Amino acid sequence: MDQDIAEITASHDTGNYPVKIGKGILAEALLSAAKLFRDPAAVIVSSRVFDLHENAIIESLSGLSEYEIIKFDDSEKNKSYAYAEKILEAFIRSGISRRSGVIGIGGGVTGDFAGFLAGTYMRGIPLIHVPTTLLAMVDSSIGGKVAVNLSVGKNIVGVFHQPSMVIADLDFLTSLPYHEMANGITEAFKHGLLGDMETLEILKQNNQSSINDASTLNKLVRRSVAFKASIVERDNKESGLRAVLNYGHTVGHALESITEHAGVSHGQAVAYGMLVKSGAGLAAGMLRKEEVNLIRDIIYKYCLIKEIPKINIDELITHMVFDKKTEARQPKFVLLDGIGKPVWNKTIDEDLLKAECHKALTVGSGAQC
Amino acid sequence: MDQDIAEITASHDTGNYPVKIGKGILAEALLSAAKLFRDPAAVIVSSRVFDLHENAIIESLSGLSEYEIIKFDDSEKNKSYAYAEKILEAFIRSGISRRSGVIGIGGGVTGDFAGFLAGTYMRGIPLIHVPTTLLAMVDSSIGGKVAVNLSVGKNIVGVFHQPSMVIADLDFLTSLPYHEMANGITEAFKHGLLGDMETLEILKQNNQSSINDASTLNKLVRRSVAFKASIVERDNKESGLRAVLNYGHTVGHALESITEHAGVSHGQAVAYGMLVKSGAGLAAGMLRKEEVNLIRDIIYKYCLIKEIPKINIDELITHMVFDKKTEARQPKFVLLDGIGKPVWNKTIDEDLLKAECHKALTVGSGAQC
Repeated sequence: MDQDIAEITASHDTGNYPVKIGKGILAEALLSAAKLFRDPAAVIVSSRVFDLHENAIIESLSGLSEYEIIKFDDSEKNKSYAYAEKILEAFIRSGISRRSGVIGIGGGVTGDFAGFLAGTYMRGIPLIHVPTTLLAMVDSSIGGKVAVNLSVGKNIVGVFHQPSMVIADLDFLTSLPYHEMANGITEAFKHGLLGDMETLEILKQNNQSSINDASTLNKLVRRSVAFKASIVERDNKESGLRAVLNYGHTVGHALESITEHAGVSHGQAVAYGMLVKSGAGLAAGMLRKEEVNLIRDIIYKYCLIKEIPKINIDELITHMVFDKKTEARQPKFVLLDGIGKPVWNKTIDEDLLKAECHKALTVGSGAQC
Repeated sequence: MDQDIAEITASHDTGNYPVKIGKGILAEALLSAAKLFRDPAAVIVSSRVFDLHENAIIESLSGLSEYEIIKFDDSEKNKSYAYAEKILEAFIRSGISRRSGVIGIGGGVTGDFAGFLAGTYMRGIPLIHVPTTLLAMVDSSIGGKVAVNLSVGKNIVGVFHQPSMVIADLDFLTSLPYHEMANGITEAFKHGLLGDMETLEILKQNNQSSINDASTLNKLVRRSVAFKASIVERDNKESGLRAVLNYGHTVGHALESITEHAGVSHGQAVAYGMLVKSGAGLAAGMLRKEEVNLIRDIIYKYCLIKEIPKINIDELITHMVFDKKTEARQPKFVLLDGIGKPVWNKTIDEDLLKAECHKALTVGSGAQC
């Protein structure tokens, strides 16, 4: 057993919550969470994760006096407002009350869905995130953003609902394919570029293989959680600073949209966005050549972009305008004014943007993954 | 024009908002609200209210640069999670953004529905309540509780979403039938019993006719808003003190449930609950005979109970157990330890409860309305 257990406190407007990080910590952490519930807990668990880790999950839940397992076939299609209604109705039938809570076990999609249920059932009941992907551990489980999809768009309906606890058990990562690890590395890398120099060091000193070492992973997750928590703490509801966490995401979301989420993962889309932004930053004199090279080197070394299908750049740019974060229908971007120094709400000249989107396709395809 | 305009500041965990009270104030108040929106506002307006006040509403909205009127045929049936989806989709099509806001014009049902939309669209956008019933002015528009119904229960899905402004324009009350006024008087009376002595004085000194005087109404609304705001301020999320606002409501909700919302208004149900509770309080030595008489006298004078259909008391009590506010499936009540001194989380002996429920039926029917 690995004794390398970390606990980080994440603060928000009205309180704070512990983020527990380590290998094989789920049972013990859930035991300490059990006191949060005085009525049966609703356990929303990704079907895939349940199939892979059934014994460990069931054993870990034994510390709770009563719970109801609801398996969730996690996909963006099922993370819908309409499907949430079915589960909310099931909550009533299962005796889930205001004194109950929701435990979400899975990746970001499961966390979003479980979080939306917890955030809206009886005006909000306690939520425990058990992220099982590196992406969910370093990013989506922290900060309280939860949402479901409408047929007209992703994450349109949601709330800010802060968890009562986050349990990042690194044992779940042992069953995670590398391309899923890469999604998490991209977001951790983003945190590095936004100012977390230790994360950049970890990524520089390791590679696709050595990053899987338990103590390295622990450190990587710990750094990212602490960094993201420090940003969210200063701007819970994304009225300003928190927007920097969207670095690479306006371009990334547009790429995901036009490829209809087929073939291009979230991480790859964001990594592509980083290439576009770093190119634009170089052109604008905000980034130096060696900084841009560092960004490209890390993307190559960890194979953060695998393959981007043929896309129409004009279409890509049109989709940036319709990103829900845009204001007054003009795309705004986060840029780096040097590594570690994000600035937000920036516009990019359309011709430059087009040129960089083209260039990033070539650079991205150089990764040879 | 009545120059008697009041503004009360209601505080919550993360900020505060103005509650503006007066006759014919909608246009001016909306003008000051216009700065909250930088994209089109979604105006959710009760169809009934719109039919009665179309000109005034349209004129008042002229201060906003852009808005979209969505008429809402307000009923508990339409205040549903499923119907909310249709409107949320319409928001996207109408270009409602994170910088937009929702203006809800109507009674409590409209406010709940508009509030749920505002509270969940893109994780929450600004909300302005324009309550048009006395009940919504003195109670539901204050405090941030918003919710929609599932087929399995009322108000099961919702959030705490504090408004950015509440505009109580007393002109709307001129078209309100007296039985609707009575619903509001009951909640104002409840605030009086919970500790607002000035409200009790107003109710003692007036009657069904004189209460409609503009300056009396203004004072009544002002007192109730200030009282409710003072409670909510100390307990935003109903973890303790705020529970006192449910005085009369556990019994009332059960009565509403078993009469299937037909024939018994919310106000009548709560007034019936008050009679039950005051009887139980007398039996428990917590209320004096003259205090109980005062409660009955006000209920009679303002005709707060009109007629209660034949009900099965055992069924009524079963429904109290299933009220969502009950904990561990044992009904808990707010009681008065003397007028103005609420205590909460109290159980009542079942035999006593049954007897008082029976007795209140007789007392209630004595009102001769």
